[in-house]
Formats: sequence, structure tokens, C-alpha cells
Amino acid sequence: MTTLVFGHKSPDTDSTGSPIIWSWYLNTIKGTEAKPVLLGEPNTEALFMLDHWSLDKPDIISELASDTPVVIVDTNNPAELPDNINDADITQIIDHHKLVGGLETKGPIDIRIEPLACTATLMWKMIGKDMAQMPTSIKGAMLSCILSDTLEFRSPTTTQEDKAIAHDLAKELGVDIATYASEMFAAKSDVSAFSEAELLRMDSKEYAVGGKQFRVSVLETTSPAQVLDRKDALMAAMPGVAKEDSADEVLLFVVDILNEEATLLVPNDTVKTVAEKSFGATVDADTVVLPGIMSRKKQIIPNLKI
Amino acid sequence: MTTLVFGHKSPDTDSTGSPIIWSWYLNTIKGTEAKPVLLGEPNTEALFMLDHWSLDKPDIISELASDTPVVIVDTNNPAELPDNINDADITQIIDHHKLVGGLETKGPIDIRIEPLACTATLMWKMIGKDMAQMPTSIKGAMLSCILSDTLEFRSPTTTQEDKAIAHDLAKELGVDIATYASEMFAAKSDVSAFSEAELLRMDSKEYAVGGKQFRVSVLETTSPAQVLDRKDALMAAMPGVAKEDSADEVLLFVVDILNEEATLLVPNDTVKTVAEKSFGATVDADTVVLPGIMSRKKQIIPNLKI
Repeated sequence: MTTLVFGHKSPDTDSTGSPIIWSWYLNTIKGTEAKPVLLGEPNTEALFMLDHWSLDKPDIISELASDTPVVIVDTNNPAELPDNINDADITQIIDHHKLVGGLETKGPIDIRIEPLACTATLMWKMIGKDMAQMPTSIKGAMLSCILSDTLEFRSPTTTQEDKAIAHDLAKELGVDIATYASEMFAAKSDVSAFSEAELLRMDSKEYAVGGKQFRVSVLETTSPAQVLDRKDALMAAMPGVAKEDSADEVLLFVVDILNEEATLLVPNDTVKTVAEKSFGATVDADTVVLPGIMSRKKQIIPNLKI
Repeated sequence: MTTLVFGHKSPDTDSTGSPIIWSWYLNTIKGTEAKPVLLGEPNTEALFMLDHWSLDKPDIISELASDTPVVIVDTNNPAELPDNINDADITQIIDHHKLVGGLETKGPIDIRIEPLACTATLMWKMIGKDMAQMPTSIKGAMLSCILSDTLEFRSPTTTQEDKAIAHDLAKELGVDIATYASEMFAAKSDVSAFSEAELLRMDSKEYAVGGKQFRVSVLETTSPAQVLDRKDALMAAMPGVAKEDSADEVLLFVVDILNEEATLLVPNDTVKTVAEKSFGATVDADTVVLPGIMSRKKQIIPNLKI
């Protein structure tokens, strides 16, 4: 049976590219029939990457048959995976997020999680000398994943390994990192086609804090004004999105990649309290700027309080 | 703060030796202050290993202070760890068991799980070229762990990697594997000093199957008669142990290492049903022999039905 390789339900560049990378490795190097799939529509940056490197867009699956062999990449959180994920035959997990618990396997399997900025960086390490056989297009995906997850090395999640591997790949591919990253970020920043509800769910993860369920959404952009001009409509859409997704609140952080800061939308007193307690912010409007905040994983989630 | 390195609550050779191996690696190679500790009294085989290789017996801890940095080895099961394990600062997990879920970390950490017979085998792979600096005594612990977990390569969990690494270590140490393994197994088989309740808990893990909680105990021995001569007393002790440990049943598998079979004690109809449904056994007495069954992980747990 073909092994399905997928990331989380809100496919960004890493969750779109890593399944492609790992499927190549399984098919070509390990002799295991594998296919990359997506659990949702990829974001505009991921689509740009696919187009730029002439990679096929993986099929989007909405259901997962029991006992399907699967490799999970870029997450270990059941909430970000198909509801019946524990009925699948999970054969491997490759990730760089904190362990949240909840995934179970039927027997011992390969699991590799490291505190790197990007899944693709870990895959580079795991592939080792077989990197020599990787086609240019897949190497391009790998570089894209690292530049995306590190926000071109600006994110505090960036490690020396992420950086060194990206520079090596760029050199080999003849890619100018600054130019290519700005094209990627421009693609991600063009959110004009999306509704408010789509924006709130685009890069979003649910976390429980102090008995409340938060949908923590991040929009990384080089043109924050394009999002913030729509703040009233975004805040108006929050209660509906929260209700549909069984969350108590939506927290939307608009991350300004170039200025290295986030703007949090503050629709009500609960979110105001979260902003004050979590980030020591003084809130006197319906938005608050949080200087230096760029990483949900490293700066937002570990500090969330209510 | 010193990092504590520990395995599970019923320390066998791997759960005693692996913390010693990894603490050496952290202290000597990685420059991280670390200390091996135990969560219970090691079994007689583990004590034999410590004595044979002149290794200090690690301290046994009964409490774990919050925020203590810890490395968990040879398990990822919260039930086999201190109650407050998720309040500790888990910095790394190295294991070879199925993922059971329940452990949570505060941020992304290093996790490495592989379907090998033994944690020490995985550590050998992770230590890589730094193995050259490892002292003889620690290499002796590593060899002991592999021989113990593979039952001298008889267990179906044994992989080619476990085998090759054990042979390399034995050659370098000048150890005759057959002789040394039989000394280890003789040490493990001498259970005369233990009460029935202690035997039932010696190498025991809890699993939920079909709404019931089972304490699945395994005694690996080269002299099964020594245990089976006490079967009436063992069965008499089961209800008390089950009650104290909030389990519904105790399943005791006496694994005959040399004859490669297990004898399951059958104290009641529930266990009779388990034996029939799980292993296709015909039960007409208060014990049943299960040919070829040697591994809880690979043969017992995946098949348990009721």
C-alpha cells in the first residue's frame, strides 16, 4: 500500500514542501512507495514555491482510510491531523515542534524531533550523503522551507544548522537568498483573494491555556497594512470562526517580517488581558504592537497566559 | 542545574545501563552536567551488570522537583515515570517503544525513537564517532543492555543493527557473548529473594485493553521451574497486587529464554479468555505454554484481546 506523507491541516511552505522531500527520499532512496498529500489548500507562498520549482501540487485529501501507512511531518499534534489519525498505520514522525501528546502508534516506529526552525533542515540531516542524488527541484523546495520557517533567518527559532544548510543549498542552486526570499514573502503577503474567515484560519493552531481554547493565528507578511486595513472586518469575523471551530477566542498576530514585530488584534477584554499578561503590553486601542515577536512556537505559545 | 537521566520505574538492564551511558555522553562529550538515577530498585541482572563492570549503582529517587532538567530513556509512557513528569523540564527522549502519548514538553526538544531492540543500540548510533572515547566499563554496560533486551538475539525484536553493534562491542571488549549472556541470565533467573508481589511487579507495564487495565508482567528466566514452582502463591498474590495498582488483572508471562517460549499463569476465566483470544491457545489448566512468545512489545501487547 502506498505510504501517504503529509503535514498539518494549514499547509504552509514547510508542510507542503517536506512531504514532497520525504516522498522523494522514500521512493528513490529507501524503495518505499510513497506519495505526498495535503490536508488543506496550501498558502500562497507554498503555491509560489511549487510554481517556481515546477513541482506538482500534491493532491488534497479529505479522508484517511483506516490502516493507511502514513508518515507525519511538521507536526505531532492530533488536532492538526485527520480525526482518525490514530487508526492509520503511522510509520514515521519527523517534526520540530514541542511534543503535545495524543498520537499513539501500534508498535515502535521511527520518530525524530529536533528543535530546529524547519522540518526540511532535519530531513537534510537524516538524508545525509544521499542528498547528492536529490534533484534540483526538491532541493529548491528544501531551501524554500527553510527560508519560510526562519523568515530568512530573522525568526528566533533559527539555528546555525538551518542557516548553514540554507546557504549551502542556495549556493549549489545558484539562488540569491535575499531576492528569492523577498519573492516568497511577497507571494505570502498577497492575501487579497481571501475572506476574513480564511485569513483567520490560514496559519492557525489551537492551544488550551488556563481552561480556555485559543485559536492562535499568525499572518507573516511584508505588507502588514494590507491585513490591518481590514482589522474591523477581521474582528467582526472572529466570534463566528471561534464558534465554528469550538474555540473560545481567536488571537490574530500580524507578523511584520521586515520590521520584526507583531501586531495583535484586540477585539475584547479577554484578549486585552492575554496581551497584558503574556507580553507585558500596554493596550489602549484595538491593536497592540509587540516588538520583536515573530515566532508562535518560541515566543507566543510559551508565554500565553490569561 | 544537573540534568537527571532515567528510564522507567522497573529498572531492568537497559533502563539501568542507558542512563549511565547517556550521562557519560552528556558530561564528557556534550559538556552538560548530568547524572544517572533510577526510579526503583534495579533487577538482579542489572545489579550483576553494575558489579561486573565496576559501575556505581545510580541513586534511586522517589521524588522529582518541578522544573528539573531531565532526559527520559527507554520509555515514553507517563505511567512508567514520576507522576509529575510533565512538570519537569524534559530536554530529551531516547526510546525504542511505541508512542503511547501523554508526555508533553514546554518547547521543541530532541526526541529520537527507533524500532530497535534496545535503547543502548540507538545511543551507539547517536554517539557515532565519539564512541572512540567511551571507557570500557560504559561499553560493557552497552553490550549488557543489548544482550539483555535481545535475550542474546533470540527475541523477535532483535534487528541487524542490535546484533552487529553487540558483536563489535564484544570483540573490542574481549567478551565471549555466549558465556557472558548466560551469566547475565543466571543472575536474572535467581529470584529466590523476592516475594510473590515483588515478582509480579518486577518487569511489569500497565496497558488498557478492551476497557480493562492489565498489569502485563514478564519474567525472563533460564530456569522457569524456579518461578513455576511458586505458581499457586503467585496466583494467590495477583488480586491484591491488581487492587493496589488499580489494575483489573495481572498477566504473568514466564519467558523461558533458552526454550524460546512463555508460560502464562491462568488464575481465572478472564485470563483464560485473554489467552484464547490473544494467542489462539487451548487452555485446560492453570498455566498455558505459548511457543515462540518472548517479547511483550512485539508479541504480547500488539495481540492482547479480551
